[in-house]
Amino acid sequence: MQNFVFHNPTRIVFGRDKTASIGKATLPYGRRVLLLTGQGSVVKHGILAKVTSSLSTAGISWVECSGVQPNPVLGFVRQAIDTFRRENLDAIVAVGGGSVIDTAKAVAAGVRYEGDVWDFFTGKANVLDAAPITVVLTLPAAASEMNSGGVITNEQTRQKFNLGGEPLSPKVSILDPVNSFSAPVNHSLYGVVDAMVHLLEGYFNGSDPWTPLQDRYAEGIIRTLMECAAIIREQPDHYDARANIMWGATLAFNGLAPCGIGPAGFPMHMIEHSLSALYDVSHGAGLAMILPGWLKYHSDSSPRKVNQFGRRIFELDHQDDRQGAQAAIAELERWLRSMDIPASLHEGGIPIDEIPAIAENAVMLAQKWGLKAYTQAVIEDVLRRASR
Amino acid sequence: MQNFVFHNPTRIVFGRDKTASIGKATLPYGRRVLLLTGQGSVVKHGILAKVTSSLSTAGISWVECSGVQPNPVLGFVRQAIDTFRRENLDAIVAVGGGSVIDTAKAVAAGVRYEGDVWDFFTGKANVLDAAPITVVLTLPAAASEMNSGGVITNEQTRQKFNLGGEPLSPKVSILDPVNSFSAPVNHSLYGVVDAMVHLLEGYFNGSDPWTPLQDRYAEGIIRTLMECAAIIREQPDHYDARANIMWGATLAFNGLAPCGIGPAGFPMHMIEHSLSALYDVSHGAGLAMILPGWLKYHSDSSPRKVNQFGRRIFELDHQDDRQGAQAAIAELERWLRSMDIPASLHEGGIPIDEIPAIAENAVMLAQKWGLKAYTQAVIEDVLRRASR
Repeated sequence: MQNFVFHNPTRIVFGRDKTASIGKATLPYGRRVLLLTGQGSVVKHGILAKVTSSLSTAGISWVECSGVQPNPVLGFVRQAIDTFRRENLDAIVAVGGGSVIDTAKAVAAGVRYEGDVWDFFTGKANVLDAAPITVVLTLPAAASEMNSGGVITNEQTRQKFNLGGEPLSPKVSILDPVNSFSAPVNHSLYGVVDAMVHLLEGYFNGSDPWTPLQDRYAEGIIRTLMECAAIIREQPDHYDARANIMWGATLAFNGLAPCGIGPAGFPMHMIEHSLSALYDVSHGAGLAMILPGWLKYHSDSSPRKVNQFGRRIFELDHQDDRQGAQAAIAELERWLRSMDIPASLHEGGIPIDEIPAIAENAVMLAQKWGLKAYTQAVIEDVLRRASR
Repeated sequence: MQNFVFHNPTRIVFGRDKTASIGKATLPYGRRVLLLTGQGSVVKHGILAKVTSSLSTAGISWVECSGVQPNPVLGFVRQAIDTFRRENLDAIVAVGGGSVIDTAKAVAAGVRYEGDVWDFFTGKANVLDAAPITVVLTLPAAASEMNSGGVITNEQTRQKFNLGGEPLSPKVSILDPVNSFSAPVNHSLYGVVDAMVHLLEGYFNGSDPWTPLQDRYAEGIIRTLMECAAIIREQPDHYDARANIMWGATLAFNGLAPCGIGPAGFPMHMIEHSLSALYDVSHGAGLAMILPGWLKYHSDSSPRKVNQFGRRIFELDHQDDRQGAQAAIAELERWLRSMDIPASLHEGGIPIDEIPAIAENAVMLAQKWGLKAYTQAVIEDVLRRASR
């Protein structure tokens, strides 16, 4: 076990009809808030009405800032910072999934900083202070509702970069599984993949060779996510399956999973970020396209853990690690396809002949994230293995 | 999934040589502290010297209050409250296992309350405020280092009662696995059983019938604890096994495991509390004596989950739930005995003919904890099944 620090002060209020408690949850942090939402589904499904009614009851006024897009962009962040400052607001209420919450984090950091908010993404500045954030989660995937990081795309430079810092942890996040019923099923399934890959990055890339506790933690969540994904595909309104996905996705990336595994890169996320910076791809779908190909690449050097994955997730039973790894990847591809999730670049509609350009974009992030092994050639190799 | 609120603000600093950071970790909470320790093993093994050196370096002065006993008592708590007040201290540094940390919590609540500290245990008062606590953990078991509860025995009334409240969460807990090397191996193993039973109480007593995420969370930690227990029995200084036990025991009872399982009683703890209130029994050993007997009782009404436990922990494969449950309990007994842990009252040296008196004491707690099904007759039944 490697040394670590764990601290996660976010209060989780989980359950049916809990959306109505957002006003009370937000009140300790201010009476005038920026109400941040996405592309309108929260209006259509009545979630926003519940939120504003709860804010009103608590005596909180708001300035709405809607239109966060799925891969949220810097331009929107800058506008929201201006609005927050102009209206002299106290706090941010984010109603949505990872894109809305990540936007809230960038705004929260930006309004307490004199310089350019992009400085936090390029490493020019650290987040030392932030406006308080409360959350009503809709789409489980990113776990942004219970961690201190976020990802924003700079639409001018085509860089999808991340920021992080303790002050960005939401104060309170409301996880009402009913709010996730309204998401299209394919998007919900992409969210499941995102959560799975959050766990798998650490599972396969941790630097400690013996992590029995962390392995089982990840495996338990992954099995549950897969089990529940199959249920909501048939019954989108299955409360318990939705609830297990919502809580499972949060537990997948709230900082607990990597405790003790030592430094672990995020190579699949790194490569996916360039996919969704360059193409109109949902983050979870992009990860699904990369995952089997990356596992093939990874199995060359480290088949043992991939074999363990096959044994514990798919109940395979191979003595030989290479054979086991191969079988595990085949099972995973089969499962993704059975869920209508693209399991390769081709299935996701990504032009294969642009692999060099995708890799070139990813290399920038590889350098930023310190993934030195991921040269242009290696990333192209991974992408080629992921192509079909 | 049942509704829940989860909030755990304790900062965990985990790893080798982290004891030396206790001064820096404590400084934000005050410059004059009560230094609470147990029966001297922290002196013998040099842990206390590291702590005081770190406090000195940080410019923190301390008043030592040593001698907390394994089942900590109210009399000691009252004395420590007097010392804290007389010396006009700011915070408490607890160096030890659950008994020391639980004592710290009672003292922390008591010093900020005008009335009698026992009021928090009888339910006459709620903990609304508490002095800040920081921790250097020695013996993993109770998870008191990352939760907001504690247990104290009133030696006059022979009641082993608990208190709880958000202000009691330690601010920072230092988990240095090296500090656990010094504990006698049998005590370390009792600690493992305590952690396992924390998980099993929820696993078997949760009120939600379908909890795939929570089941796997518990199973993963239990398997790891058992695996590592076997290692430290042979190699007490095995860092990684000690580390997995330390972090596993914390994760077993830091509030995450029961999220979503709904109301769950703690019948095994309830019965054990009367054992260790009446006899000189280590809490974990007492739980081990109760566990198989309670499982036999529980299997009568709910064999399915006990069969699942056998399947997932011991890799048994029984179609019939009753047969599977029986086999699982037999495996568990075998495992406990293989670790030299008492698996029955008889093995633990408890006089079997005193079962009615033990049950009478436990009934008091059954009423306090709202475990209405646990009448005198039921508790006697469980104890008889646990007798050999």
